[in-house]
Amino acid sequence: MTITVTRDEFRNAMAHLAAAVSILTTDGPGGRCGITLSAVCSVTDSPPTVLACVNRSSAMHDVFINNGRVALNVLGGDQAELARHFSGATNVAMDERFAWDIWESAGHVPVPVLRDAPVTLTGTLSGRTPMGSHSVLFVRVEEIHVRGDAGGLVYHNRDFHRLGS
Amino acid sequence: MTITVTRDEFRNAMAHLAAAVSILTTDGPGGRCGITLSAVCSVTDSPPTVLACVNRSSAMHDVFINNGRVALNVLGGDQAELARHFSGATNVAMDERFAWDIWESAGHVPVPVLRDAPVTLTGTLSGRTPMGSHSVLFVRVEEIHVRGDAGGLVYHNRDFHRLGS
Repeated sequence: MTITVTRDEFRNAMAHLAAAVSILTTDGPGGRCGITLSAVCSVTDSPPTVLACVNRSSAMHDVFINNGRVALNVLGGDQAELARHFSGATNVAMDERFAWDIWESAGHVPVPVLRDAPVTLTGTLSGRTPMGSHSVLFVRVEEIHVRGDAGGLVYHNRDFHRLGS
Repeated sequence: MTITVTRDEFRNAMAHLAAAVSILTTDGPGGRCGITLSAVCSVTDSPPTVLACVNRSSAMHDVFINNGRVALNVLGGDQAELARHFSGATNVAMDERFAWDIWESAGHVPVPVLRDAPVTLTGTLSGRTPMGSHSVLFVRVEEIHVRGDAGGLVYHNRDFHRLGS
């Protein structure tokens, strides 16, 4: 039991909270980028909205906001390596990641979506709630592409796990 | 590809977004209750904050807000039955669920926590963002209880799955 919660204690606790792994992407006047996120969830189906928590100290934070258009690429069980690239762990430059033949464009204002992700959603930022070091970005979903069930990619206990098929 | 996203299309897409399963509980002047949630995520470690999306049409929504004190009980791989009870699927009355010998109290203003959950966090509601049919409730975490790794309980493709040990 901890009365004063330290950063490490909180992180250790959150390691037990399993989470789907996604890559949030954008393109537009602010630039093109993508970041691996596990703090993503469904908010409401009326109107269809998801949220994603993004660190405000990341240079990408303002790119997402300035473009206002994003894609949420929900990763499949065989896409852990891609999650590592977009977490920055592999030091592959952003331009190189987007040069790989894994992308297509979707949305009436096109943003990059992963061709082989189980699900991709494109939409517009409809709100933002700052909370400490992060922003909660709300995405009003306008297009959905379900590519079948490749099984999910889940982050739990500081490691990737495959879920299902 | 869908240009106009219907409620069913959104729900079908979200079924592919794996999510940890938790029970959010509260006690206080507003009453005692608990609800199974999968739309929960870590927001920031400074200050330690998690969020949970709760349907505003649920009678429990206002109980959480009126009490202002909650516990997030992150369920383990063997607690799917409990998740069903607190989703209302089994029609067991709320008082009966809290009469089971599975609870203890935690927090300087006590709220019910699950004795055998891998992780429980207690805290204070620090903010709320209404979004369509739901509210995003922000919980400032004040106490953490990690009970070891029982493996995670994950909801994916409309079914429960065990993760890890």
